Amino acid sequence: MNKQELIAQINQKKSFLCIGLDIDLAKIPTHLLAREDPIFEFNKQLIDATHHLAVAYKPNTAFYEAYGIKGWQALEKTINYINTKYPEIFTIADAKRGDIGNTSTMYAKAFFEDLNFDAVTVAPYMGSDSVEPFLAFKNKTTILLALTSNKGGLDFQGLKTNNNELYKEVLKTALTWKNSENLMFVVGATKAAYFADIRKIVPNNFLLVPGVGAQGGNLQDVCNYGLTKDCGLLINASRSIIYAGNDINFAQSAQQEAFKLQQEMAIILHENI
Amino acid sequence: MNKQELIAQINQKKSFLCIGLDIDLAKIPTHLLAREDPIFEFNKQLIDATHHLAVAYKPNTAFYEAYGIKGWQALEKTINYINTKYPEIFTIADAKRGDIGNTSTMYAKAFFEDLNFDAVTVAPYMGSDSVEPFLAFKNKTTILLALTSNKGGLDFQGLKTNNNELYKEVLKTALTWKNSENLMFVVGATKAAYFADIRKIVPNNFLLVPGVGAQGGNLQDVCNYGLTKDCGLLINASRSIIYAGNDINFAQSAQQEAFKLQQEMAIILHENI
Repeated sequence: MNKQELIAQINQKKSFLCIGLDIDLAKIPTHLLAREDPIFEFNKQLIDATHHLAVAYKPNTAFYEAYGIKGWQALEKTINYINTKYPEIFTIADAKRGDIGNTSTMYAKAFFEDLNFDAVTVAPYMGSDSVEPFLAFKNKTTILLALTSNKGGLDFQGLKTNNNELYKEVLKTALTWKNSENLMFVVGATKAAYFADIRKIVPNNFLLVPGVGAQGGNLQDVCNYGLTKDCGLLINASRSIIYAGNDINFAQSAQQEAFKLQQEMAIILHENI
Repeated sequence: MNKQELIAQINQKKSFLCIGLDIDLAKIPTHLLAREDPIFEFNKQLIDATHHLAVAYKPNTAFYEAYGIKGWQALEKTINYINTKYPEIFTIADAKRGDIGNTSTMYAKAFFEDLNFDAVTVAPYMGSDSVEPFLAFKNKTTILLALTSNKGGLDFQGLKTNNNELYKEVLKTALTWKNSENLMFVVGATKAAYFADIRKIVPNNFLLVPGVGAQGGNLQDVCNYGLTKDCGLLINASRSIIYAGNDINFAQSAQQEAFKLQQEMAIILHENI
């Protein structure tokens, strides 16, 4: 999927919501545990209930790998289900990969070709040749970690270097890489005030913003600083939506939470774009 | 496996060789492609031929994920084979993972519990709470990226911050984390002169050193600066060993290459420890 198709979907659905599919068997409704593939069954019902409210889904690979082969199978079934039934949806493998050149190419093949995700998250620590192999894929998006929303996020990302915090150097440097038009960046919502500075460096790239919801970030604050004329934001919520309910009606509960966010987003888009 | 068991194995085998199992179906002997699981068959023969010369094996997960479910199955069969037949071997999942706290816990479970590796490589960009969940596992080792051997390694790792390059800040900071005694660090061999400075910061931790062989690093140079009284080094070679031959005798060719490195290592250990 290319950027224009994503923007068209945002305008059509009046939503820039991404739903994180971070599935923990200890947290899903117990009636699903008797099913052959509880993780996929949970995802399928969630997706069917929310696909008209969200423009993207983002399975975090850790939650699938933790269940071994069965987890990997559930991931494969989930992405195939979305690609077949809702091909307009933008799909993100939240994998935070990154390795030396030939190895990054293998990761890119795993997520862009074998699993056929539209996008994958990548860590910047190993530099240009660890990211460029992902960027080389046409109509695929590489989402580079810049400023993350976790407690230790600033341990290194916040260090001053060349008179700039490291995460700003990452943003600036990444724009110089080959095929950098295929880049989005991860910027955590818990640091909304940072978005003004970030937009000076990357005025046009989409930002994937985790941290709204369970992690405490505020949607309106992020949009005040982060919106572009193309929207330019994908706001991710995971736990606050997928675990909104824990009984047989869990998918409806998730739908209600997603609807609340989509309604907020519709107003923001209407007022600003 | 704990550090003392690894050191005992090094002394017994007179080797600190780690063999990287980065399996590319386009590079393995063609006669194996007809087998039900060519990747596992290749690994099995390699391991049987080299287990007395190496103290560790390091499958890079990218090369398995690129083949989807089948790749993940080959990885699982490989680690189970080593753990069952050669339980003295130190096993490393070269996965370069790292995410927010609860997600890193899932990755740690995937590699330490589900697959039962002794160690996993982790990227530092997201800071303390992305690494400490790995460190919490007893008798397991977390191998943190510090200075990598690839072309873009210094793009960010080499940036000056607090009057130190970023990779030195990573080393210093990581030592302050909870359970830091479970840390090793990745330091690329192509930058052997850096080892003297690195040993001032981390005098005792083991270093996993890729880049000897195909990437051009020199074993003797690395040892001059990097050895400790406990050896303190695991030298990784991948392509130079596993693709030494490409015919029916590939495992013997690999054994010869591993033997050359082990002989060099035996002399270095004899002269220095």
